[in-house]
Amino acid sequence: MQHYHIAVLPGDGIGQEVITESVQTLEVLAQLHGGFRLDTHEFDWGSDYYLREGAMMPADGPTILKQSGFDGILLGPVGDPRVPDHITLWGLLLPIRQQFDQYVNLRPIRLLPGVRSPLANKGLADIDMICVRENTEGEYAGVGGRVHQGTNDEVAIQSTVFTRSGTVRIIRYAFQYAREHGRRKVTSATKSNSLQYNMVFWDEVFAQVAADYPEIPHEQQLIDSLAARFVSRPESLDVIVCSNLFGDILSDLGAALAGSMGLAPSANLNPERRYPSLFQAIHGSAPDIAGKGIANPIASIWSAQLMLDFFGEHEAATLLMRAIEDVLTARQALTPDLGGTATTHQLGDGIRTQLRT
Amino acid sequence: MQHYHIAVLPGDGIGQEVITESVQTLEVLAQLHGGFRLDTHEFDWGSDYYLREGAMMPADGPTILKQSGFDGILLGPVGDPRVPDHITLWGLLLPIRQQFDQYVNLRPIRLLPGVRSPLANKGLADIDMICVRENTEGEYAGVGGRVHQGTNDEVAIQSTVFTRSGTVRIIRYAFQYAREHGRRKVTSATKSNSLQYNMVFWDEVFAQVAADYPEIPHEQQLIDSLAARFVSRPESLDVIVCSNLFGDILSDLGAALAGSMGLAPSANLNPERRYPSLFQAIHGSAPDIAGKGIANPIASIWSAQLMLDFFGEHEAATLLMRAIEDVLTARQALTPDLGGTATTHQLGDGIRTQLRT
Ligand SMILES: CC(C)[C@H](C(=O)O)[C@@H](O)C(=O)O
Ligand SMILES: CC(C)[C@H](C(=O)O)[C@@H](O)C(=O)O
Repeated sequence: MQHYHIAVLPGDGIGQEVITESVQTLEVLAQLHGGFRLDTHEFDWGSDYYLREGAMMPADGPTILKQSGFDGILLGPVGDPRVPDHITLWGLLLPIRQQFDQYVNLRPIRLLPGVRSPLANKGLADIDMICVRENTEGEYAGVGGRVHQGTNDEVAIQSTVFTRSGTVRIIRYAFQYAREHGRRKVTSATKSNSLQYNMVFWDEVFAQVAADYPEIPHEQQLIDSLAARFVSRPESLDVIVCSNLFGDILSDLGAALAGSMGLAPSANLNPERRYPSLFQAIHGSAPDIAGKGIANPIASIWSAQLMLDFFGEHEAATLLMRAIEDVLTARQALTPDLGGTATTHQLGDGIRTQLRT
Repeated sequence: MQHYHIAVLPGDGIGQEVITESVQTLEVLAQLHGGFRLDTHEFDWGSDYYLREGAMMPADGPTILKQSGFDGILLGPVGDPRVPDHITLWGLLLPIRQQFDQYVNLRPIRLLPGVRSPLANKGLADIDMICVRENTEGEYAGVGGRVHQGTNDEVAIQSTVFTRSGTVRIIRYAFQYAREHGRRKVTSATKSNSLQYNMVFWDEVFAQVAADYPEIPHEQQLIDSLAARFVSRPESLDVIVCSNLFGDILSDLGAALAGSMGLAPSANLNPERRYPSLFQAIHGSAPDIAGKGIANPIASIWSAQLMLDFFGEHEAATLLMRAIEDVLTARQALTPDLGGTATTHQLGDGIRTQLRT
């Protein structure tokens, strides 16, 4: 029997509330399914930790996670009004993505049954894409600085850094994904008209990698008009491969089109499994509703589902996805963001009840 | 009587078709209104010119435009499948924006009467914002390069450059605009969690400038969740101030929400009037429908309307805007993108007929 060792980092705000539901759901699933076991180890890293210790995690945080031999990391949202956002993020999530070489950020954008899209006349079949986002370099390389700080002459520079290996591997991943999952098409998000260095380079690599997948139709589109197409013709999109920033924007936009930020999951993958991969809802820590027990746990539970899938536990993953869809279809036990009145825990329980039936 | 001297650059693709309608409409308006005259001078710069001459415009193109004493420039879309996009853009539009210090790119995002938004349950009052986009630096500074080109070690760097003066003036313009137009609120698009140099700087400047406008509510939001909010709660947005790239993305997204890319105008302004300002539809050259006479000319005509307004011809500008709205309300003579069967010229004629009544 497979035994998975999971690091759980609830993070900030509603994090503890939604992560608890994910862990409970995984435990019920493991019992019912019987094919695998898991144990979890919780870490209190995040903004409270920062306010106490002066850092978002211990200096050797990544080493601890690596040396403990975790198979995966479940992370809650990170962000707190008392701490500047760039400190929160560059103190925890972004270094983990980079140091664990989680170069794929996989983000399904799918309208689930029972959920209403804000788009008129778009149904389940119309919103079903997957965003393959580069996750370790590009716009979020973290390279830059400020000169003449505070004076009228101040200049702030932030450089986007695209390496060939980093660009090739994410684009190849997208085509490989399309091939293995029978997807129709790969669309590359670009902006090579105004960004004449990094995006022209990106386009060249895209064309080169695409040549290895002659059976998969491909196209590229400028990020501005691609954002417009998300709204006007989402049914024309399938696999989308994009840079770190573009993927960040498109996946939030996609989550809104799919009905709620409370539903959208993500997987930060090191496909070679040299480092643990990380699974996280794409929503923020929602300080306005933290502690009220009304946050939607589905994005977090779906992220745990992506983890099972990445582990190769496809049967369990399928069961869990079906349970999520069944609860939504029944429209019982829904949280306020979905138009219901249930609590976070009641929605989690609803999913676990479905698993048992 | 005021006399305006206008440079007309039809550009590529559908450019000639839509620009012709704009010029004819301005001429009719000038006759009817009687308060101003205009003469136009057409330039054939663009991709055909490039294929003939090896450059998008003469080397001294901006000098020609400047020395001829033009009051404004009407530009069509630029882009052609036979020319790489970065050559097209960096050969014409982007240098004009920079050399003429057109640091404000003003983009109304407004659902017009008679037009249907792809968003369910959103009406006229819900989609009415204005995007104030920085237009001379930031992500489109044009700074960067590539090393080890073509090898496995290649690195492409594109740097975003934010100066204090460039940042202060665009944010100040947004607040000033809000004050003068009785707008409710200014929202700043940011990404200071992951972009810890340029966007943290942007946020600091935003807070400093906002302090000079204590009566105007302001807020900032991460670009990813702001894109989601465009879809989920557009009615909560009013003036949006943003960097070059973020404004580019948000304005196309906004155009889609407002029903058609064929409707969205823009003004590239040098508010100090040291250089001519430029007015342009935000849509592309649409090579797929070029020459068919079915492109929607409204974005181009509305851009000409913004020019009149910038000239201080508020009465004529109001008349023209009303004629555009009346034609849309009547739902006669609409082009295919709006669900009609009219030609570009028939829609232009429809607007001119409304002007005369
Ligand atoms: C929290 C933030 C740094 C992060 C990102 O921008 O990558 C988030 O928006 C996401 O999409 O995962
Ligand atoms: C054509 C292109 C360079 C331009 C831009 O990116 O600024 C366009 O998309 C726009 O929005 O005006």
